[in-house]
Formats: sequence, C-alpha cells, structure tokens
Amino acid sequence: MNAKADAAQAVLAVKARLGLTWAAIAEALDRPVVWTTSALLGQHPVPAEVAAKAGELLELTAEQVRALVSQPTRGAMGTAVPVDPTIYRFYEVLQVYGPTIKELIHERFGDGIMSAINFRMSVDRVEDPAGDRVVVTLDGKFLPYQW
Amino acid sequence: MNAKADAAQAVLAVKARLGLTWAAIAEALDRPVVWTTSALLGQHPVPAEVAAKAGELLELTAEQVRALVSQPTRGAMGTAVPVDPTIYRFYEVLQVYGPTIKELIHERFGDGIMSAINFRMSVDRVEDPAGDRVVVTLDGKFLPYQW
Amino acid sequence: MNAKADAAQAVLAVKARLGLTWAAIAEALDRPVVWTTSALLGQHPVPAEVAAKAGELLELTAEQVRALVSQPTRGAMGTAVPVDPTIYRFYEVLQVYGPTIKELIHERFGDGIMSAINFRMSVDRVEDPAGDRVVVTLDGKFLPYQW
Amino acid sequence: MNAKADAAQAVLAVKARLGLTWAAIAEALDRPVVWTTSALLGQHPVPAEVAAKAGELLELTAEQVRALVSQPTRGAMGTAVPVDPTIYRFYEVLQVYGPTIKELIHERFGDGIMSAINFRMSVDRVEDPAGDRVVVTLDGKFLPYQW
Amino acid sequence: MNAKADAAQAVLAVKARLGLTWAAIAEALDRPVVWTTSALLGQHPVPAEVAAKAGELLELTAEQVRALVSQPTRGAMGTAVPVDPTIYRFYEVLQVYGPTIKELIHERFGDGIMSAINFRMSVDRVEDPAGDRVVVTLDGKFLPYQW
Amino acid sequence: MNAKADAAQAVLAVKARLGLTWAAIAEALDRPVVWTTSALLGQHPVPAEVAAKAGELLELTAEQVRALVSQPTRGAMGTAVPVDPTIYRFYEVLQVYGPTIKELIHERFGDGIMSAINFRMSVDRVEDPAGDRVVVTLDGKFLPYQW
Amino acid sequence: MNAKADAAQAVLAVKARLGLTWAAIAEALDRPVVWTTSALLGQHPVPAEVAAKAGELLELTAEQVRALVSQPTRGAMGTAVPVDPTIYRFYEVLQVYGPTIKELIHERFGDGIMSAINFRMSVDRVEDPAGDRVVVTLDGKFLPYQW
Amino acid sequence: MNAKADAAQAVLAVKARLGLTWAAIAEALDRPVVWTTSALLGQHPVPAEVAAKAGELLELTAEQVRALVSQPTRGAMGTAVPVDPTIYRFYEVLQVYGPTIKELIHERFGDGIMSAINFRMSVDRVEDPAGDRVVVTLDGKFLPYQW
Amino acid sequence: MNAKADAAQAVLAVKARLGLTWAAIAEALDRPVVWTTSALLGQHPVPAEVAAKAGELLELTAEQVRALVSQPTRGAMGTAVPVDPTIYRFYEVLQVYGPTIKELIHERFGDGIMSAINFRMSVDRVEDPAGDRVVVTLDGKFLPYQW
Amino acid sequence: MNAKADAAQAVLAVKARLGLTWAAIAEALDRPVVWTTSALLGQHPVPAEVAAKAGELLELTAEQVRALVSQPTRGAMGTAVPVDPTIYRFYEVLQVYGPTIKELIHERFGDGIMSAINFRMSVDRVEDPAGDRVVVTLDGKFLPYQW
Repeated sequence: MNAKADAAQAVLAVKARLGLTWAAIAEALDRPVVWTTSALLGQHPVPAEVAAKAGELLELTAEQVRALVSQPTRGAMGTAVPVDPTIYRFYEVLQVYGPTIKELIHERFGDGIMSAINFRMSVDRVEDPAGDRVVVTLDGKFLPYQW
Repeated sequence: MNAKADAAQAVLAVKARLGLTWAAIAEALDRPVVWTTSALLGQHPVPAEVAAKAGELLELTAEQVRALVSQPTRGAMGTAVPVDPTIYRFYEVLQVYGPTIKELIHERFGDGIMSAINFRMSVDRVEDPAGDRVVVTLDGKFLPYQW
Repeated sequence: MNAKADAAQAVLAVKARLGLTWAAIAEALDRPVVWTTSALLGQHPVPAEVAAKAGELLELTAEQVRALVSQPTRGAMGTAVPVDPTIYRFYEVLQVYGPTIKELIHERFGDGIMSAINFRMSVDRVEDPAGDRVVVTLDGKFLPYQW
Repeated sequence: MNAKADAAQAVLAVKARLGLTWAAIAEALDRPVVWTTSALLGQHPVPAEVAAKAGELLELTAEQVRALVSQPTRGAMGTAVPVDPTIYRFYEVLQVYGPTIKELIHERFGDGIMSAINFRMSVDRVEDPAGDRVVVTLDGKFLPYQW
Repeated sequence: MNAKADAAQAVLAVKARLGLTWAAIAEALDRPVVWTTSALLGQHPVPAEVAAKAGELLELTAEQVRALVSQPTRGAMGTAVPVDPTIYRFYEVLQVYGPTIKELIHERFGDGIMSAINFRMSVDRVEDPAGDRVVVTLDGKFLPYQW
Repeated sequence: MNAKADAAQAVLAVKARLGLTWAAIAEALDRPVVWTTSALLGQHPVPAEVAAKAGELLELTAEQVRALVSQPTRGAMGTAVPVDPTIYRFYEVLQVYGPTIKELIHERFGDGIMSAINFRMSVDRVEDPAGDRVVVTLDGKFLPYQW
Repeated sequence: MNAKADAAQAVLAVKARLGLTWAAIAEALDRPVVWTTSALLGQHPVPAEVAAKAGELLELTAEQVRALVSQPTRGAMGTAVPVDPTIYRFYEVLQVYGPTIKELIHERFGDGIMSAINFRMSVDRVEDPAGDRVVVTLDGKFLPYQW
Repeated sequence: MNAKADAAQAVLAVKARLGLTWAAIAEALDRPVVWTTSALLGQHPVPAEVAAKAGELLELTAEQVRALVSQPTRGAMGTAVPVDPTIYRFYEVLQVYGPTIKELIHERFGDGIMSAINFRMSVDRVEDPAGDRVVVTLDGKFLPYQW
Repeated sequence: MNAKADAAQAVLAVKARLGLTWAAIAEALDRPVVWTTSALLGQHPVPAEVAAKAGELLELTAEQVRALVSQPTRGAMGTAVPVDPTIYRFYEVLQVYGPTIKELIHERFGDGIMSAINFRMSVDRVEDPAGDRVVVTLDGKFLPYQW
Repeated sequence: MNAKADAAQAVLAVKARLGLTWAAIAEALDRPVVWTTSALLGQHPVPAEVAAKAGELLELTAEQVRALVSQPTRGAMGTAVPVDPTIYRFYEVLQVYGPTIKELIHERFGDGIMSAINFRMSVDRVEDPAGDRVVVTLDGKFLPYQW
C-alpha cells in the first residue's frame, strides 16, 4: 500500500517536472483519462504492459512499476468527510441530493443500486457564455436486488 | 425544519397512495424532475405558486404548503457516511475517484471548484444490452479561486 | 422509514404473541427464511401479494402492509460498530479476516468485489459432537472492476 | 506489533516477486488457505515449525520468522468502517442483514453467539452461468449464554 | 427493545417505591444477584417462570413480563466511552491494564480469550480497616483460537 | 512517553528472545505479576532499584532504565473501543454489565466508586473440567462521594 | 434518569418564577451552594430530608422529590466537547494546561491523582479594579497509586 | 510546532537528568511555576531573555531556544477526551459540575464567561490529617457578553 | 433550553405568517439586527423590556417571553461540522484561512485572541457590478494572554 | 502535499530567522497580506513569478519554490474542531451566530450562499480606547441557488 502511495508521489513529481498533462499521459497509454489518473494515483491495478509504458514515460523505478501493477486497497479521501473545497462540493451534492438520487433510481429501475464497480466516469469542460461548466458524468450498471 | 420534514413525509405518503411518480409530479409542476424531487423532500424552497399547485395535487394542508415555501436548512444524509447501499455507492465513488476528479478539474480549468449552487443534475436510465445503466450527470458552473 | 420501523415492531410483537417462528412465517409466505426475516424487519421491499399474505398471517393494519411494500432506506445497525455481542462477532470477523477475504477474492477472481446486491445468504445449524455450529454462508455474484 | 506488520509486508513483497499464490503457500505449509493468509498477514501466531517453513519458502529473516511466531494484537481494518470496496461489501451485509442473522441464530439455537474464536471460514469460487459467485462460509461454534 | 427498556424503568420505579434491594429480589427469584440485576435491566432474556415471579413481586403488567422474557439486543452504555464516574473507572482499568490482561491470558492459556458468554461475575464488599473494598470478579471460560 | 514505549518494546523483544515469562520476571523483581507486567509495558513508574534489577535481567540500556523510572502518561488502548478480541471481551462486559455493576456498588456501599488508583488486580487460571476459566479479580477501595 | 432530568427542569422553572437564587436555596437547605446546585440539577443524590425541604421550597411533586433522592447516572455535558462558551473555557484550560497540572501534581505528591469523588469546589467573585474575577477552586483529596 | 514539541522533549529529558524540579526552574527564571511549566511544555511563547536563561539552565541548543520563543499553536491533550487518569479527573469534574459552574457564574456575574486568556492558575498541596489535598485554583477575569 | 428552542420556533412561525423581516423586528425593538436575530433564535438572553416588546410584536405567550429572557446554553450548529451549504462556507473559510488569521492576529497584536464575547458582527449586502457581495464583519476586542 | 507543508515550514523558519513580517513579505511580493500568508502556508497555488520572488526573499530551494507553485489539497485545521484558542473563537462564532448569518443572508439576498472561492478577507487592528479590536472582514460573492 505504501509502495502504491510512493509510486503515486513519483508520478505526480515527474508529471510536474516534465510538464505533462493527464490527458497526454492517458493518450500515451491509450487509456481513458479518468481511469488513467485514478490508476496512477493508486486506486486501480495497472496491467503490466500499461505499467511498463507508464514507467518509461514517467521515468519510474522497477519497484514503482511493480507497485502500479499491484492490487490496491482503495480509498483516497483520508477522512470520512473531505475538507478540500474542490472535493467537498461533491460530498455536499450527496448531502443535498442523495435521497433524490435514491428516489429516482428506484422510480426508474426498481429496487437496486448503480454499480460503482461496473462503472465509468468522465470529467468534462462545457463552454457556456455565463461561465464554463464542469460536467461530471457517473455511469454505472444498474444492479437489481436479486436473491 | 421539522415542518419541512413533515411536509416531505406527507408528500411521500400521498404520492404512494395515489400511485404518482416523481416524473408525473414534475410534469404537473412544470419543473425538472430532480429539482422537483429534492424540493418536495425539503432541500429547496418552493416558489409560492409551485407550492400551491403541489398542495392541490398532493392534497397538502395550508401549513404543509407554507413549509414547502420556507427556506430549508439543507443536509439530508443523517450521518456523515451514508449507510443505505444505493446512496453509499456515490460516497464510494468519492473515496475512489475524489482525487482524480480534483486533478482533472484543475487540469482543465485551473484552480477552482465545480459549484454545487449554480448546479443542475439529472438521473437517467440508459439502455444497454449488457444491462441498463444509471447515468447521473452533475453539471455545475466552474468557479475559479478569485481574490 | 418510520412507517417501516413501526411495521417491523408490529411483526415482532405479533410473532411473539402467536408463538410463530421465522421459519414458519417464511414457509407460509413461500420465501427463503433469511429474505423473509430481513424484509419483515424492514430491509427489503415486500412484493404486494406477499405483503398481503403477511398482513393476514400477522394481523397487520393496511398501513403496516403498505409500509412493508414501500422501498426501504436500508441500514439497521444503529451505530457504526455494533454493540450487541451476537452481531459484534461478525464485525470482529471483518476486523480479523477482512484483508484475508480481500486477498483471496483477488487471487481467485482478479480485481473486483462480491456483490451484496446480487446476493443471498443462509444461517444454518450444523450438528457437531463438540458443540453445534452456526454456519453462515454469504453467496454473492463476483463483480469485476470494469471500465 | 510493528514487527508483525513488517513481516507481513515482507511476505507480500516476496510473494509478488516469486509469483506465489496463497493457495500454493498454504499447500507448502500444509495449512488451510484462509488461516495461512491471515496468519502470514499477522492476525494469528504461527507455530514455530510452520513459521520456519514459511521463512524458508518466503526468504524471511530470523527476526521476521520470530515476528510470525509472536502473539498478535489483532484488528486489521485501520478504521471502524472499512473504505476499500471489496471489504466494505461485507460491512454492508452487516448493516442490512445483521439483525436478521441475530434473529435466526436465536431462533435456531436460543440465546448466544457464533464464536469468532472457535471458528473457521472459507472463501470459494462457485461457477455459475449467470456469473461466478463468491461464497464465503463463516463456521463458528455456537456458544450459549451460560452463567 | 423499547419494551425491554420500559420494563426496566418499571422495575426500577417499583423497586424504589417498595424499598426492595437487588439482593432481596434475587433471593425471591432464586437467581444470582448479578444475573438478576442485569436481566431485569434488560440485558438477558428471563425464563418465563422467573419473569412471572418477578412480575408478581414487582407488580408488572403482562406486557412488561413478556418484555422481560423476550430476547434482548444487548449494550447498555449509551456512548462508546461511559461518562458516569462509577462506570468510567472500569473503562479506565481497561485503558491502563488492558494490554497487561492480554499478556497474562496468553502467558497462562496460550492464544485465545476469556469468554464473555460462558461467563459469570460477582460484585462484593470486602471489609478492610483501611477502607472497605469493591471486589469485582470476572470469571469466564477460556476459549482457545481453534481452526 | 516515546521513551517509555521504546522501553516496553525492548522488554518484549528481550523477553521473547530469552524465553522469559512475566511470572518469572515478576518473581525476579519480587513484585506482583500484574503490576510488573503493566509497569514494564509503561503504565506505572518503576522504582529506581526495581528498574535497575529489570535493566540487568532484560539487558536494557541506561536510557531504557531511566524511561522505566519516569512518570507515565497512562492509557494503552490506542482507540476508544479496543479491536483486539482478547481485550474487546472486557469492553463487552462493560456494555452488558456496566449498569449492573453500578447498581450493586450503590446498593452495597452507597454513592461512590471503586477506586482505580488504590487498586490491585489479578489474572488467574482456574481449572474446570468443563474447560479452564480465566478469573480476573478487580479489587479497589470504595470511595464515597464526600463533599 | 429521565425522572431526575424532569425534576431539574422543574427546579429551574420554579426558581425563575419565584426569583430565587442558588445562594438562597442553598442557605434554605443549609448546604454548600455548589453542592446544592449540582444536586438539584441531578448530579448528586439528595438526602431524603433535604429533598423534602427542597420540595417544599420549590413546590415539587412527590415524584420529583423522589427523583431528587434517587441515585444519578452522572454526566451532564451532552457532548464530549462542550459547545457553550461559558463551559468551553474550562475545557480549553484542560487543553492548554492539562499536562502542566499533571506535571505539578506528580512533582508535589508523586504518582497519583486529585480525587473527583472526595472533592469539593467553589465558584467565587473576587473584586479587582481591572475587572472582577471568576475564581474556581477545585479541592480534591490526593490519591496515590497504591497496589 | 514540531520544533516546540522537540524543545519540550529536551526540557523534560534534561530536567530528569539534572534532577531539577519545576519549582526550581521557575525560581531560576523568576516566573510563576504553572506558567513556567506550561511555557516550557510549549503552550506559551517564552520572552527572549527568559528563553535564554532557560537555555543556559537546561543546556538547550540555539534552535530549541528559538522554538521556546516562537508563538505556539496551543492544545496539548492529543484526544478530545483525555485518557490519562490524572488529567481525566478534571474532565470528569466538567462532566459532573459543568452546568453548575455555568449557573453560578451567571448568578454572580450575569451573562458572560471566565476568561481563559486573562487567566492564571495555581496547583497547591494543602495538608490535611485525612489525607493531603490537591487544590487547583482557576482565576480568570470575568468577561460580560457585550455588543 | 427546550423552552428557548420553542420560543425560537414560535418567533420563526409568526415572523413568516406576518411577513416580518429581521430588519423590521430589530428596528421595532431598537436593537442591532444581528443581535436581535441571534437573541430571538435563543443564543442571547433578552432584557425583560425588550422581550416584552418582542412578545407583543410577535404574539408570544408569557411563557415564551420568559424563555427569551432566560440565560441560554449556547451552541446552535447541531453537529460539529455544519452540513447546510450556507453555513458550511464559513467553516470552509476556517479550514482554508484559520492559520492565516492566527498568524496575522499574532503579527499585529502579539499573543492573544479576538474575543467572541466582547464582540459584534454585521452581515451586509454590498453592490458590485460583477455580482453583489456578502460582507460579514467580525469585530471583537483583542485579549492578550495575561498572567 | 508533503512538499507544500515542507515549504511552509521553511517559510516560517526563515521568516523568524530574518525577522520578517507577513506584511513585509506581502509588500515585497506585491500581493494582499492575507492571500500571501495563506498561499505561503500552502493553501493557494502561487503563480510562478511570485514564487520565484518569494524563493529569493526567503532563501528557498528550487524544490520548495516548485511546491509553492503546485496545486494544494486545501484544509489546514488538522481536526474537525480547532483546539488552538485563537482559531477556536472563530469556530465559536459559528456555533453561536451560524444560524443568524444564514437567516440574514437569506433575508437580504434570497436562497444562496456567500462564496468562499470568489472571496477575499482582511484582518485589521482597529484602535479603541476600551482596548484595540480585531476586525476580520469576510467578503465573498453571493451565489444564488440556480438550476
């Protein structure tokens, strides 16, 4: 686990030094950018060949590449309630709209959940004359409660 | 606040008795369905004329209508970490992807946040042969840190 | 939610008064006993016709039957860490064996989880000359992390 | 305790480097795989001769072997509520089914608990055309409350 | 559960009104005094015939007697750390001597625990010229970790 | 405090290497075994001459001996609720029997507490054909509330 | 416990209605004012004859008088950290001066504590040209750690 | 902050090695003993000339002296509720007598607080044939709520 | 305290029914608007003659007027971290700028605090072509640490 | 993140050694003093040219300058509730006046919040014959809830 955090630190440092963007790294690895970012930050195991490419691109040690490949123990917020304002706003969305999301999932699908495992997401910038907008799309398979 | 919770309870009870859906209620009130749901659950003040229409549709008392109109103290999860599985999955998304969202917002917009105030969202069902998908779109204005 | 808790209280009271067992109730409703118990305790929505049968068997009011049918907000432990000794032992199993379960799921299936939604369980009594044993079987579909 | 955590880290690193599986290690040590995994992760004291064999297999130092033998202070989740999704699902099972388990243990055995000490468990992969299943079996001696 | 708490309140009120002691009640019920106290406070199910005798002695209603008989959800401290000074001292003993107890149990018995289920305790007054002493004896079966 | 924790670590390591028991150490130091264990684990200041003898017996450095002598900041559980099963059982006793202990202390002594300062305890193994028993005796002076 | 809280509420209400001070009540009961205040607020059992006098003075019901006499479960802050500013300042004193108090008690008395049971306190107003001062004197018997 | 904690550690170590008391150090620095103790433990900034004298007396490095002079971030308990028994008793006093202190401050001064900033305290040993007493005097300016 | 909360509820209900603003109420009572709002919400004792006027204006009962006059136990957030977005932003300011405020107070005043007791504040609307601004001014007397 | 904390430590150490004030540093960097302080303490990314100037002024390493430029994960209080008295007073203001601020923002602006992102603040010393005052002005754009 520490090994994965160390690899993430290294990724961030090299990325800053080389002036790379996550978009560029994702393209170089031929993976979606959200997946790439979270995998290199240690929240997903990276397939060996992708990790090797990342190791070259980001000048990682063999040990850091091995850490990228390894299975993570996930969970990256540090505290139960996030304090960083950029992350907190998403927690606030849950506080204000959580029961609404629940009502509408049940109305449209019945009893069940949106999977966070069979799941993909995107973070986009949408231009808007009144100020550009952050659009985050959460897209997960519906899983019905099934005995 | 209690008055708002009581109104929400009444809304849910009548909605079940009459077999109404949130979609139908939203259409009757001519408002977006996510906004309608969260407002009737007590997370937004309802404009007086909308509240009046809702009162008629849902057979609310005058006091309940007044409660819908009143300014809420927001926050609906009850505990810091939600325990209901349908809501928890969104918290898990924050645990796994929170720092990723942060990195990508900063990469695409610079230092700042997605507003949770100048904000709209949708909850959609997208058909998929491998199992239909829940697609939740969070759409907030980018607010740059500005001194 | 309160309505569901009230219905659960009523179920428990009548069950005690009539000397019924969960096994007998489950048989009368023609449902698995674990599902029946958790549904009548308010953790699953009960299909209307099953709720009707339960209402007759357990002398419930129409409102209590409607509560059984309604969608629950799940979560029944009251506190983050359970204090009742019978329930605590299962929490202790997680404290002692949690990372072991994780290692072995990953070894046998790859990266992913055991679903708690596409899930069934049983609680059995197994005779043993050294003292009968409680055997709890958790049986959930494996869900691979899938982008 | 630190010594035990260090030994566990070493075990994981060598296991990855040598491409060993827990199943293979357990077979080499002639112990059940769940016990082996949790013992090498530091949750059980390892008998001296087993620790010696493990030390050879996993190229541990004498100090690490001694650490495996020593009595653990158990508890491996780090936080009261686990955040890793693979482990969290088991916590969720407690939130949703905890009182059900309690009801059924009492119905079938009377007042008492499932021991988490006189206890064994297994983690199995069961093939299923609708998707293979994780089957975790918890098997503990029933202990009646006895004055 | 509420029913059990109500019964306990009733027991305490009548006990005060009639000037009974726990010792006298225990004698009347022909049960150990610690067991009697905790059972009437709602922490143990009371066998039907003992509950009936208690009901007579303490002028309980039929519902209260039924509550005494019912299976409790145990746990009586209200908060994780007790604030009442008389109870807190025992928590303090755990803070100061917990690891010592653990070391000595392992030294004298090997790996395992003192059962809190196959368990009895006593609270005694021991005369002492330097001030009488409270002697609390915890007496539980040793349970070895056993796979 | 760190110095005391370091000394405790050293004591445990040497004790394991030399194969000493707490009983033997206590005898060598001519002190009660519970006191000896908790003092060497850092919960009591050790009188200088006893610390010197312990230093010789356990091959401690001068700094470690000084640490044994120094006044501790007590409290050894690490978390408010202990997670190690051997220690947790005693916490469970408080959850189940705390109010009972309180009732009986007040019945036998009046308003006051069992001192955890003017206090001694023992941990004994008592043979029993049905399985040997752990008997922990807490023995503290009664202190009446006194203005 | 509830009964004691109800009695305290009644005391406060009558005291306000009659315009009594704690000083006057204490004098009427011939008890120290700090003791009187905390006892009538439910933190000490009140001797029967004092409770009778208080009942007359404060127009309490027989049940309220009985509640005053009964043994309290102590602890009056509601939360672990007090939020009322007047009480918080004393918590702040502990945060800033706690270790100092500990050092000086040990320097002047050796290893032990100030009893909070054999204890009395006063709250005084001391005139001062630079602004009158609140002087709170905590006065408890020293209890040495004694095996 | 770390620098201040390091300086405090150094002070404690030298104080023990040289066999100094807080009383002697305070006298050498010509400051009250409570202030001296808390300032050297890092809770108050030490005036430069006093820090210089302390540095000489306690053989501190220039960096440690600078740390003594620097402004502290105060707060020394480590946890919200103290676990060391000597400090805990003062927390217990707040739990039992907090509302009493509040009532009496308001009765004698009106609405306001005892300042913990314009504040001094003493810790004294008062001889008593029934056992010497710890007398802690908290003495802070009354601050009325003033708009 | 309950009485004060009830009075606050009554104030809010009548204020909404009569369509009054806090500004108008403050003017009628001839008090600053921030003080008036917090006092009527139960955070300050209201002088008798002001409470009488408020009682007339807001059609309060005699008991509610008495509640306004009574001394509050302050603290109105309900949870340690506020969840309502409008209040949370001020908590966020503390998370981001807390240490900055501390540095600058110490740089400009020396060691000490801004009093929250000898304190006044205002909440203003300032027009701005880029969007009007909320300007909250906190104005408290500096209190130097003074022994 | 660690890199930013290290840079902040370096800034504080050099600032103390050189006897610089935040006011002087802000002037040298030609930035507002509150912004400068929080940015150098790690709560804002510092533009490259400002960071370069700060690096020269404060003798920072290239790595420390890079850390100043990097995007922070914000949040500086360490605990949910601050314990340092200077910072705590602002938390107390929220406890006492939070709902008042909320009421008045809604009365003057409608439903919405004060932005903590489009935000500036100042910390001033205002002379006052009765004791100088700390005046903290929070000035954020009003953001209306907008779907």
